[in-house]
Order: sequence, then C-alpha cells, then structure tokens
Amino acid sequence: MATSIFYHAGCPVCVSAEQDIVQLIGEEQVEVVHLGTDKGRISEAERAGVESVPALVTPTGNVLHINFGASMADVKG
Amino acid sequence: MATSIFYHAGCPVCVSAEQDIVQLIGEEQVEVVHLGTDKGRISEAERAGVESVPALVTPTGNVLHINFGASMADVKG
Repeated sequence: MATSIFYHAGCPVCVSAEQDIVQLIGEEQVEVVHLGTDKGRISEAERAGVESVPALVTPTGNVLHINFGASMADVKG
Repeated sequence: MATSIFYHAGCPVCVSAEQDIVQLIGEEQVEVVHLGTDKGRISEAERAGVESVPALVTPTGNVLHINFGASMADVKG
C-alpha cells in the first residue's frame, strides 16, 4: 500500500496531531516531513494542495488539513 | 483497542474525509456518527470538544478537526 505523507512544521498543534495520526494509521504507513527543517519539500507540499500544517496527504492524493498550526506562508517565513 | 469516533453531518467535505479516514484507520476502528440524522449525539460531540465537522475523536480523547465542513452551530441548525 502506498504511504501517506504528514507535513508539519514543529508547532505544538503539529506535534500533537502527529502523535495521533502515527498511532492511528501506523508508523510504517506514514512518512513524516518537517517543513521547517526540510524547506526543500515546501514546493512539493504546495503542489499536493497543502495550505496549512499539519496536513496529511493520503495515498489517493487527497489533502486532510488537521486542526490548524500554521499557514504555508508562515512556514516559508 | 478503543475505537475512534468520526463525527460528520453529511456535507461533501465530510463524506470525502470520511472515506479517507475509514480507509486509513480501518473500518472496524472507527465509529461513524452522522450528527445531522443523529442529533441526540450533538451534546456528546460538544463535550468531547468538537467545534466543527468533520472531526475525529481519537481513543486518547484528542479532537482532530479535519478540513472544515460546518460549524457545530450549523449542525444544530
């Protein structure tokens, strides 16, 4: 099965959501990407439709924005 | 394992998120509650901290607001 990608930026809301998502979906099914430290992947996240973090991009390409930590504009700084 | 509860109100955003969540977490791990047709459970959802739908309440009691379909005020109508 293709994995989901969880994009976050290290904010408290992100970390809390990450723990829940990883536990629910299973660690081996989710790639976790920290956009604050891995800025090279910001454009990839935007192309996928991520507008704010934390967000989960599913294997089918849907974007689930989970709670609200920061906008992509904030992430880009 | 305790199950999560996915609250929704039948809106397009809710249905789309439901399909993703059920597929990712597994049907047997999620109870799906339609607050539009099951209004008796609105107060339960509010006590859990649900502010808008769709939302997922995890086994640990955290509330993940996923995208945004409708506020609880809209659900109560």
